[in-house]
Amino acid sequence: MAKELKNLTKRADNYSQWYNELVIKADLAEQSAVRGCMVIKPYGYAIWEKMQRVLDDMFKATGHQNAYFPLLIPKSFLSREAEHVEGFAKECAVVTHHRLKNDENGGGVVVDPDARLEEELIIRPTSETIIWNTYKNWINSYRDLPILVNQWANVMRWEMRTRMFLRTAEFLWQEGHTAHATREEAEAEARKMLEVYADFAENYMAMPVVKGVKSANERFAGALDTYTIEAMMQDGKALQSGTSHFLGQNFAKAFDVKFINKNNEQEYVWATSWGVSTRLMGALIMTHSDDNGLVLPPKLAPIHVAIVPIYKEKAQLDAIAERVKPLVDDLRSHGLTVKFDDADNRRPGFKFADYELKGVPVRLAIGARDLENGTVELVRRDTLEKEIVPFAGLEDEILRILDDIQKSLFEKALKRREERTITVDTYDEFKEKIEQGYFILAHWDGTPETEDRVKEETKATIRCIPLGGDDTPGVCMVTGKPSARRVLFARNY
Amino acid sequence: MAKELKNLTKRADNYSQWYNELVIKADLAEQSAVRGCMVIKPYGYAIWEKMQRVLDDMFKATGHQNAYFPLLIPKSFLSREAEHVEGFAKECAVVTHHRLKNDENGGGVVVDPDARLEEELIIRPTSETIIWNTYKNWINSYRDLPILVNQWANVMRWEMRTRMFLRTAEFLWQEGHTAHATREEAEAEARKMLEVYADFAENYMAMPVVKGVKSANERFAGALDTYTIEAMMQDGKALQSGTSHFLGQNFAKAFDVKFINKNNEQEYVWATSWGVSTRLMGALIMTHSDDNGLVLPPKLAPIHVAIVPIYKEKAQLDAIAERVKPLVDDLRSHGLTVKFDDADNRRPGFKFADYELKGVPVRLAIGARDLENGTVELVRRDTLEKEIVPFAGLEDEILRILDDIQKSLFEKALKRREERTITVDTYDEFKEKIEQGYFILAHWDGTPETEDRVKEETKATIRCIPLGGDDTPGVCMVTGKPSARRVLFARNY
Repeated sequence: MAKELKNLTKRADNYSQWYNELVIKADLAEQSAVRGCMVIKPYGYAIWEKMQRVLDDMFKATGHQNAYFPLLIPKSFLSREAEHVEGFAKECAVVTHHRLKNDENGGGVVVDPDARLEEELIIRPTSETIIWNTYKNWINSYRDLPILVNQWANVMRWEMRTRMFLRTAEFLWQEGHTAHATREEAEAEARKMLEVYADFAENYMAMPVVKGVKSANERFAGALDTYTIEAMMQDGKALQSGTSHFLGQNFAKAFDVKFINKNNEQEYVWATSWGVSTRLMGALIMTHSDDNGLVLPPKLAPIHVAIVPIYKEKAQLDAIAERVKPLVDDLRSHGLTVKFDDADNRRPGFKFADYELKGVPVRLAIGARDLENGTVELVRRDTLEKEIVPFAGLEDEILRILDDIQKSLFEKALKRREERTITVDTYDEFKEKIEQGYFILAHWDGTPETEDRVKEETKATIRCIPLGGDDTPGVCMVTGKPSARRVLFARNY
Repeated sequence: MAKELKNLTKRADNYSQWYNELVIKADLAEQSAVRGCMVIKPYGYAIWEKMQRVLDDMFKATGHQNAYFPLLIPKSFLSREAEHVEGFAKECAVVTHHRLKNDENGGGVVVDPDARLEEELIIRPTSETIIWNTYKNWINSYRDLPILVNQWANVMRWEMRTRMFLRTAEFLWQEGHTAHATREEAEAEARKMLEVYADFAENYMAMPVVKGVKSANERFAGALDTYTIEAMMQDGKALQSGTSHFLGQNFAKAFDVKFINKNNEQEYVWATSWGVSTRLMGALIMTHSDDNGLVLPPKLAPIHVAIVPIYKEKAQLDAIAERVKPLVDDLRSHGLTVKFDDADNRRPGFKFADYELKGVPVRLAIGARDLENGTVELVRRDTLEKEIVPFAGLEDEILRILDDIQKSLFEKALKRREERTITVDTYDEFKEKIEQGYFILAHWDGTPETEDRVKEETKATIRCIPLGGDDTPGVCMVTGKPSARRVLFARNY
């Protein structure tokens, strides 16, 4: 029965198909009628809401405030920053008209040609331009700085190949946009937010990340430096999970945003921007889940504990309900979400399989014999270990297990990454190993040409130049030219 | 000095200008570079976030879950429900292309004519169509019902005349979309959500509302019944603050959404939708604020208590900071936001005026003499009453005052509405009174023609047919024809 419910492709057979099926079967999201746009279903959205809440608290704890800027951006704004328009022009949804009308020839509803906009508007692919055009009015003096603002929003990039959560035409994200009086302060802000993202990834998503800086090729369009957190998925590929950009004075110059500094001189403002998106949902799924379905870290699970009563008669159900009530109350008082599943139109076996598929961290089953014996059956989702445990002291045991699952998931993912991160010195070995799904630390001569060649020949890119770690110089594995330090190569999502 | 900061038009001089200025001066929002779209600034957004949190908790407590549906809607979807397209086609932002390119003639970035969409996409003005197209796949049997889903989203209606918060091309809102097996259940849901909105308006916004049902003219495009909460602004005009629609089977028929009922028969699904938007910000401002600036009910205030130290030397500031610290900690432990404003680049008088303008419910000032005397100066924003109170027991006093402000604001607004709600029996008297800003209960013959005539001649509309209250029949004040009961007329925003 459980198998019928799931019938999930195995990771080893087809990792990509496993992912696509899991997103659908676990009720996380589905394709919509609009090309490349997904519907995020209630269970998937509940996980995203948990992520939002934690991140939002972290942003506020670091002094940021939320605001909201327009969805639409005048086409001309995009052109102001040369690299920025180059990066986004090819994937913009363009609004050209503001009215429909009934076709006079009976062809239904058509675009009214008389309602053409003077200037086309772009659905924001990111908001640097409209925000810096706004900041111009907010900033006069160093006293107006810093501005530490974040927005939660939808954005649109008309990608040709889309995959749910990983790459969709519309996605949800947050974008922080900060303005500073000095280069140093802006750089420190970009680094600080990288740390916030790494903290979130590791301590809430239980997903270890490599922190680093992007090579010029992989930089955000308009940034001087792009910091990134890179996570390893179970197939050994990298997933860029969050980026934080030091934008220098590029956008201030493009939108003429100056301030009077403490020496009474006019100066351009320094900027950062940083964002994470619903892509994190993809990262979360691909880091922990298994052939039986989702595996969720307790800190982001919409349901922490599912309790399934096993009964034949109403009286038995009542006795079970009465027994577990204090436990449920106690767990809820710890901020946990507990589901006592007494639905009578689904059999216990079906429920077990469904909670497994949905990644509920702890599942209890309790029947008549358990009532007599003072026990319950407890299954933890990460290991699928099943044990009979005494009912007395169960609250503490569950809290301990949830804590242990959170830690174990991180450790398991970290161990995997460590085992699959290797140092390579020759291009031949690189080509062989990259096929097998490794994070590879290798020397690179620092040129975009070499990076392009590696990408073309192996589909691997430089994920980042890691912060900290080994910075011994060497020679480029491809060209033999000098290399300042090893960088991290991988194939990526 | 305070006057320089504010320089706010008085309500009696020009209510409309007072509102527009207040939105800007209190840092709530500003116009953006895109016609009709506003920027919601951090202070304004903080109030909206409070509203969101309370409403979201209420929706969840009534069994609803959040989800997310696409921003863009295929043009053809809009046409499926005849009244719906009639209601929204004239104000749709239309996406026609998905790419920009560099003009070969050096004209900068232009729309790429090769990237024309096969079918135009509409930025959602509301999401019934895309959601019911999705529900088609979610619903097979009565066991799949009800579906109780809400989404927080941005929507766009290309209004010709816009005013910040009250009527903007893009606005933020929530839209609930529910699906039910029976007419009764759907009608009960629509009524239930009306009650939730009324509860929120009255108990959080401190804004009394009239609950009622719309006349056919004012119904949502595609609804069988539209329930509404109507609030009276200080100028006597009505502001529609939330609506809940019983949609019957209209959208189920338009998108062919059927289910197998308990008798094993196919039936169309019953629907509701309900929403409130950033328009509530306008309602909040216009209900309570005065010629000195914003007045906020404590339950929605981003800052509850501002403490301004009055000092000459650092040592004095330190002594004051030390004295107030336990108070600040205690208030925060009650979930209050307290700002101890020790900024040294603004004088106390400026700070006082600023907190007044921003509607902070309680402001304290404490100086050297207060330290000696064990007192503080306390000003409550709603009455601007200033008193010297003992420092001992101040926590409880502040909690009591915040509670009192919340209640007083509601009572004041209720008293105003009661005083300005009258019963009128002749059209002549109606014309005279409507000029003066009243809610008028009058008899109406139930026809759209009479309603249109009243609107044309007096600019008043039927705000609602109130639920409950006096339902004595009579004769229409305009035509003398029979009237089932009095209805509520007013001019409106």
